[in-house]
Amino acid sequence: MTNLEAFALAPGFRAAAVAAGLKTSSAMGASSLDMALVVADGPCSAAAVFTKNRVKAAPVVYDQQVIAENPGSIRAIIANAGNANAVTGEQGMADARRMAELTAYALRCQPNEVLVLSTGVIGRPMPMDKITQGIAEVTSPIAHKGAGAAAQAIMTTDTRPKTATRMVQIGGDTITISGFCKGAGMIHPDMATMLAMITTDIAVSPELLQQALNHAVNRSFNRISVDGDTSTNDTVLLLASGTSQADFFTVTNMDQFTEALTDLCIDLAKQVARDGEGATKLIEIGVTGAQNERQAHAIANTIAISPLVKTAVHGGDPNWGRILMAAGRSGADFDPSRITLSFGPTGSGVTVVQNGLPAQYEEHQAAALFRDDPVYIRLDLGLGDAYSTVWTCDFSKEYVEVNAHYTT
Amino acid sequence: MTNLEAFALAPGFRAAAVAAGLKTSSAMGASSLDMALVVADGPCSAAAVFTKNRVKAAPVVYDQQVIAENPGSIRAIIANAGNANAVTGEQGMADARRMAELTAYALRCQPNEVLVLSTGVIGRPMPMDKITQGIAEVTSPIAHKGAGAAAQAIMTTDTRPKTATRMVQIGGDTITISGFCKGAGMIHPDMATMLAMITTDIAVSPELLQQALNHAVNRSFNRISVDGDTSTNDTVLLLASGTSQADFFTVTNMDQFTEALTDLCIDLAKQVARDGEGATKLIEIGVTGAQNERQAHAIANTIAISPLVKTAVHGGDPNWGRILMAAGRSGADFDPSRITLSFGPTGSGVTVVQNGLPAQYEEHQAAALFRDDPVYIRLDLGLGDAYSTVWTCDFSKEYVEVNAHYTT
Repeated sequence: MTNLEAFALAPGFRAAAVAAGLKTSSAMGASSLDMALVVADGPCSAAAVFTKNRVKAAPVVYDQQVIAENPGSIRAIIANAGNANAVTGEQGMADARRMAELTAYALRCQPNEVLVLSTGVIGRPMPMDKITQGIAEVTSPIAHKGAGAAAQAIMTTDTRPKTATRMVQIGGDTITISGFCKGAGMIHPDMATMLAMITTDIAVSPELLQQALNHAVNRSFNRISVDGDTSTNDTVLLLASGTSQADFFTVTNMDQFTEALTDLCIDLAKQVARDGEGATKLIEIGVTGAQNERQAHAIANTIAISPLVKTAVHGGDPNWGRILMAAGRSGADFDPSRITLSFGPTGSGVTVVQNGLPAQYEEHQAAALFRDDPVYIRLDLGLGDAYSTVWTCDFSKEYVEVNAHYTT
Repeated sequence: MTNLEAFALAPGFRAAAVAAGLKTSSAMGASSLDMALVVADGPCSAAAVFTKNRVKAAPVVYDQQVIAENPGSIRAIIANAGNANAVTGEQGMADARRMAELTAYALRCQPNEVLVLSTGVIGRPMPMDKITQGIAEVTSPIAHKGAGAAAQAIMTTDTRPKTATRMVQIGGDTITISGFCKGAGMIHPDMATMLAMITTDIAVSPELLQQALNHAVNRSFNRISVDGDTSTNDTVLLLASGTSQADFFTVTNMDQFTEALTDLCIDLAKQVARDGEGATKLIEIGVTGAQNERQAHAIANTIAISPLVKTAVHGGDPNWGRILMAAGRSGADFDPSRITLSFGPTGSGVTVVQNGLPAQYEEHQAAALFRDDPVYIRLDLGLGDAYSTVWTCDFSKEYVEVNAHYTT
């Protein structure tokens, strides 16, 4: 996370935030800011990745249409916390559209140049009076608070804002990628959602931008697991302003950009995993030696969503039986007699299982590695060269406490 | 659960239990009994369902061989708690085989007529000195404790023994099905395992018996979810003594038998779900109106393993957004605008979502239904006639407490 006051979007973008009174309880977010605006100086190429959940919130459906029709000239993103505009039927669709219209009117652009993001409680009508007032304020010149405030405004159960910036030399030019996001899963998917807004100053076609985003999201936001739940609202948006002079229309340059974007997305995704409800530490699960990435990912992900593994990490109990069991039920085929399981960072860890049998190790050393933050769990299948890394957090009593007694 | 002292196996079977000193900590089970024997007066038809986990304990591999080679004349089951004989390599296989040999020697039958079950910690060598002594005692005439004691002996983190008996009139004869089991998943899969031993007095071929067991397990033990983990040791065994005079070689009779067996297995499975670690109540999730059973089951199961749903039930918070979100991420295709979600028993519940939109209902009524035990969650997809029912339990702070701070 960068310093919040110093945090800025890429050249060509501004951000603002206001408190519109949408967060009606403290459980909806520590900051009273609840509406955020990202606005570009000119039309942007846009790329997006949306939730795969069958139950999609109105702004997701709306944005999918806008991105499909008009990916080459997006001007702004209007976002709110407090109400997810999900399971709200036709009225919800009309409200999402209205949010874009109001924002476009204030910014003097077209409604189909505005994307909409919402996060908060499900199944409640949008309070359009407050939203209307909030949009009027956030688009006015007096809404001087910047990107750091916008990062706070979209928070719900997040305990801290999540921002990341990368500046990269590509072909003699310095380009910037900068974005912010809010927490996922675990937390309250009934009022959560993983929202990310990322900006860059490269000039690029929407098609190449989408390819880069797909790559980055697949190795970052799709590799974090908090409790296995995907939300109705999960959305990652990427806008490119084109204000940099660098030529990014060639695939060569896009490879470098994609690498930097992936690095930034992994940074943001780890911040999300680390800030899971009640979490006290980050867990990195690396599965190597797989025949293919699909196999590696299935096993890493099944370990990551196991409540038993997550509670063992919370308690600092290096209980490797639970990890093997989770791997075994992943559905992926592997040979238990070839696996090696280690804890701790590569090169300085402790091997607890070798060739499928308990290894010789000091229990207190393994326990110490389970009390670290992050906790590293490394499983080698001994079959091939493919690998996958997944990030998650531990599972504490606070998680149960917050989720059992949350009432809207 | 039947009265423990009165609990008996089907005609043709006896049971015994002893304390062999295998449970080295109180976390391994409330009862000091830790070895159980089920012995038949004559050779039995046998059927079995084993864990699908890739990591299989030695007794599972051993029993699979015995059942494959000799399903028509099984004489006994020797079971122990305290050590799972899992991730123990070749020595573990030799130890499982030795357990069968010792039991066969004492009972004067063949080793390939004895099945072996183990549950307990993973990755520790079997204490064969204690096991040898335990087998000598449990097979001796002075081990007079019966089936109720056997049900206690296999307990690990279970808080109570789980038994069920059905007596059914079929074609003028009364046949008996009676069995016991221990807890699954959740709990400590590092020292758990769902083990079930079921006996009946019908005369039947192993093939028909296996068909009946497959049907029953698919609708019972495979329909409970505690935390989604399957163990290295999960096993359901069914022995048929043939002492009843009824003719069960016809498919017609087997249908009636299968129905009674399924009912008994559902009874046992619900006892397992209800007794999950830290659980305070049973949750029954019924998905109806599906196009096929596969679709219904995928959705019901995803709701059942959602920590957010389980914590909401624990807190008595009728948070239906979490249930829709879990359904939406199940991977099953459905139309969100056709679903109806209700809480409470059929006929006297509260509908909270109708045709995909929030329904009119009293919040306090829904909350009251979430404080009940069991809690009923009923989701109708509005698409067809297929359905699936899954049982699980709520998720409490005690679950995290026990699993975080358990140390072997």
